[in-house]
Amino acid sequence: MSEKITSRKEDYSKWYLDVIKVSDLAENAEVKGCMVIKPYGFALWEKIKDELDRRFKETGHQNAYFPLLVPKKLFEAEEKNAEGFAKECAIVTHHRLKNDPDNKGKLIVDPTSKLEEELIVRPTSEAIIWSTYKKWIQSYRDLPILINQWANVVRWEMRTRLFLRTAEFLWQEGHTAHATKTEAITEAEQMLEVYAQFAENFMAMPVIRGIKSESERFAGADETYTIEAMMQDGKALQSGTSHFLGQNFAKAFDVKFSDQTGKQEYVWATSWGVSTRLIGALIMSHSDDLGLVLPPKLAPIHVAIVPIYKGEDQLEIIKEKINPIIAALRKLDISVKFDTDDQKRPGWKFAEYEAKGVPVRLAVGMRDLEQNQIEVARRDTQEKQTISIDSVVEHIQQLLIDIQENLYQRALKRQTEHTQKVDTYAEFKEKLEKEPGFFLAHWDGTAETEELIQQETKATIRCIPLDGELEEGKCMVTGKPSTRRAIFAKAY
Amino acid sequence: MSEKITSRKEDYSKWYLDVIKVSDLAENAEVKGCMVIKPYGFALWEKIKDELDRRFKETGHQNAYFPLLVPKKLFEAEEKNAEGFAKECAIVTHHRLKNDPDNKGKLIVDPTSKLEEELIVRPTSEAIIWSTYKKWIQSYRDLPILINQWANVVRWEMRTRLFLRTAEFLWQEGHTAHATKTEAITEAEQMLEVYAQFAENFMAMPVIRGIKSESERFAGADETYTIEAMMQDGKALQSGTSHFLGQNFAKAFDVKFSDQTGKQEYVWATSWGVSTRLIGALIMSHSDDLGLVLPPKLAPIHVAIVPIYKGEDQLEIIKEKINPIIAALRKLDISVKFDTDDQKRPGWKFAEYEAKGVPVRLAVGMRDLEQNQIEVARRDTQEKQTISIDSVVEHIQQLLIDIQENLYQRALKRQTEHTQKVDTYAEFKEKLEKEPGFFLAHWDGTAETEELIQQETKATIRCIPLDGELEEGKCMVTGKPSTRRAIFAKAY
Repeated sequence: MSEKITSRKEDYSKWYLDVIKVSDLAENAEVKGCMVIKPYGFALWEKIKDELDRRFKETGHQNAYFPLLVPKKLFEAEEKNAEGFAKECAIVTHHRLKNDPDNKGKLIVDPTSKLEEELIVRPTSEAIIWSTYKKWIQSYRDLPILINQWANVVRWEMRTRLFLRTAEFLWQEGHTAHATKTEAITEAEQMLEVYAQFAENFMAMPVIRGIKSESERFAGADETYTIEAMMQDGKALQSGTSHFLGQNFAKAFDVKFSDQTGKQEYVWATSWGVSTRLIGALIMSHSDDLGLVLPPKLAPIHVAIVPIYKGEDQLEIIKEKINPIIAALRKLDISVKFDTDDQKRPGWKFAEYEAKGVPVRLAVGMRDLEQNQIEVARRDTQEKQTISIDSVVEHIQQLLIDIQENLYQRALKRQTEHTQKVDTYAEFKEKLEKEPGFFLAHWDGTAETEELIQQETKATIRCIPLDGELEEGKCMVTGKPSTRRAIFAKAY
Repeated sequence: MSEKITSRKEDYSKWYLDVIKVSDLAENAEVKGCMVIKPYGFALWEKIKDELDRRFKETGHQNAYFPLLVPKKLFEAEEKNAEGFAKECAIVTHHRLKNDPDNKGKLIVDPTSKLEEELIVRPTSEAIIWSTYKKWIQSYRDLPILINQWANVVRWEMRTRLFLRTAEFLWQEGHTAHATKTEAITEAEQMLEVYAQFAENFMAMPVIRGIKSESERFAGADETYTIEAMMQDGKALQSGTSHFLGQNFAKAFDVKFSDQTGKQEYVWATSWGVSTRLIGALIMSHSDDLGLVLPPKLAPIHVAIVPIYKGEDQLEIIKEKINPIIAALRKLDISVKFDTDDQKRPGWKFAEYEAKGVPVRLAVGMRDLEQNQIEVARRDTQEKQTISIDSVVEHIQQLLIDIQENLYQRALKRQTEHTQKVDTYAEFKEKLEKEPGFFLAHWDGTAETEELIQQETKATIRCIPLDGELEEGKCMVTGKPSTRRAIFAKAY
């Protein structure tokens, strides 16, 4: 842990990448725009995945798996969706390499293996899934279909950044089919709430629940629900979306069902997803200039124990005292790393676990043991306390709860402090310039005004909050009437 | 469950596909050669995955994720590996679609989006992973690297069959790096044993542990270890492989480390994988003419309960009696489906759970309840017993253990009965013709003889068993000396 982290103040973007580097979460791959998720980063993703998967199953969903490659004619069936993804997709055109006759040991694409129809590497799976649902749905008895898929997707992004925007990323995508519009809307709203509660209770990240403006909607959706979180630099990060797809895909793929009266109706749909982007959100919500800070509920390691000793004999004495504590902690599902690596100094280890965001770190030396105590350091506030060995297990158990809560409260305070109402465009521009954050402002509901604001300020409408009050007002730009404030912010 | 299953005797291949269909595991996708894994099939894969993942972590491995797309120049770096996969890979050549000027609403590949270097959709990840390990390994302190990845891979197969051979499939691939040859070989052997024990203890499928002949080796390996299982038709199914890769990939990607004396050495490697093919193995090991038969340790549903009643009142009485039983079973981690769907008749449900291979089925009618008893049917033997309600929980708990054991013993008996030593080529051909199975025969160790046998009989060398005795003998074809018997069989 000798690598330096650029401070947030100095260069926020560089700080973000430095934190990823020192905490060993991921790195850029040899393939342009793609990343390698390293074991510690993947452990974090597994924690996220396990908890979300549990919540999906609890709400009645099952997992399944659909193909990676989508024939072009299926891809283009839903026009808006196709248009939305056509410019950024990886296209498979051939299926064989052959030896390069001019260059021994090298391979070239075999032109005779050209595909009759190109295949698109899925950027999202509505097309392939709805072409399949068509075969599964005849009657109202076949509905609802409540399916989720954990998968990789590819979107040919030009400007990429680890976790936040990569050409390939991991995600889950739920795809549901319903007999009624109401049921589909309820489903889309339910899944948004699943995401929101996960973000708040597990990631310790407060979010605004809202709906997207038409221009920010998912291509092919009638309504996009979103959770938006505020990062430490005041910018917004869209952290999860849930789409009410109306009958758009049912119509594109001609998926009808006979209702209880025998009448043929188009099926109603939703889709919803979160991705490895959540790891980016997690980093930017809590981390500091010393490295990653992880909420205990998602930390792969809860407690790191660093022994301070000279020689094998002292280490043995420490082990004898520490092993029962480790056993007691593990019994409480608290994961512990007892770092007895004697190639590294305690100071190096302290910095290492700090960089990796381990919530609690214990230091145990001989003098402490003689006094029957242990030094307990919490990552979030950097505070250290000396705790009696007899009560250290209970102390840590409570401390993990406190850290989880503290991180949430800290993030909520930041969000609250940087969220404000603005009533004029001048005021908005001035405040946005001074200090980014969330700005609640009236807007006339048109795409033109939205675009103008974006062009002039780089801020976009993040969402129209679901819990926003109805309020008579005037658009801050055009003065036209508005009944509800939207949130404007710069965004990732 | 009105669909008929072709009997094994009538048409074994069709039976296999029928079982998949009636048990709702998977279906062919709209994309040629690919499959959709349906929720029940995916639940099975999740059970397999969870248990293997636990065993990988127990043996010190961590999960990570590497890119789907492999630049051609990395792909071609290890020559044998490249050659082995070059003829069956999906190649990405473009990254954008555009509107077809001649055909409104249609899209065509935008020729201006041609990639400078083509990308291969990974058929396996040695190339991308070793180009990454190069950055991670400098010193012996960086070794070993013990990483596993759960991923999708694509191999352009012409003749595909659900689960057994599909263009895209799901798998895990372990990729490890070691300082010494011995350590790498030990790792490859350890992982083979992890697979073997999983196959035997969880899939109830006995396997032969062995090494592959040179011509059946993984492209790029110095040695391929395999587990081979015998299906009900006597054919072999390669169920998992573990490769000692020597220094081949380290040399291809120039991955060296400095050892404790400071000397630069090439790194030693292994890779090992199992795939959704295991589901095919599972089906063909145990299922029968009524449908799927699942070993309890992998069954998504252990117990299906079918109430037999007239009217809501009777159902209420049954529920009252059954609910405590369900609660008691679930406490024992036994998963229960209580099927109260009143749109379907009990007989239909019986056939449905039979087809889906649910290990235990209860039928509960009013008359049974009056006598304080329940009908318990086991799927493997079709036997039914009437059991007192007071002891039904303990009975089921034991029954699941018995079914697991019975399936294994049944498969083992079949394997033993259809494994025989043959000493002459004539005897081999005659017996193979009469009844397929495993044939232990002497072989002179040459690829020519191996090929001749394959051409004449369609049988291949499945492996040279690791527990095979040293024995002086003569090759059944050429008469040349041999010290060990190989297993010959027809294979999937």
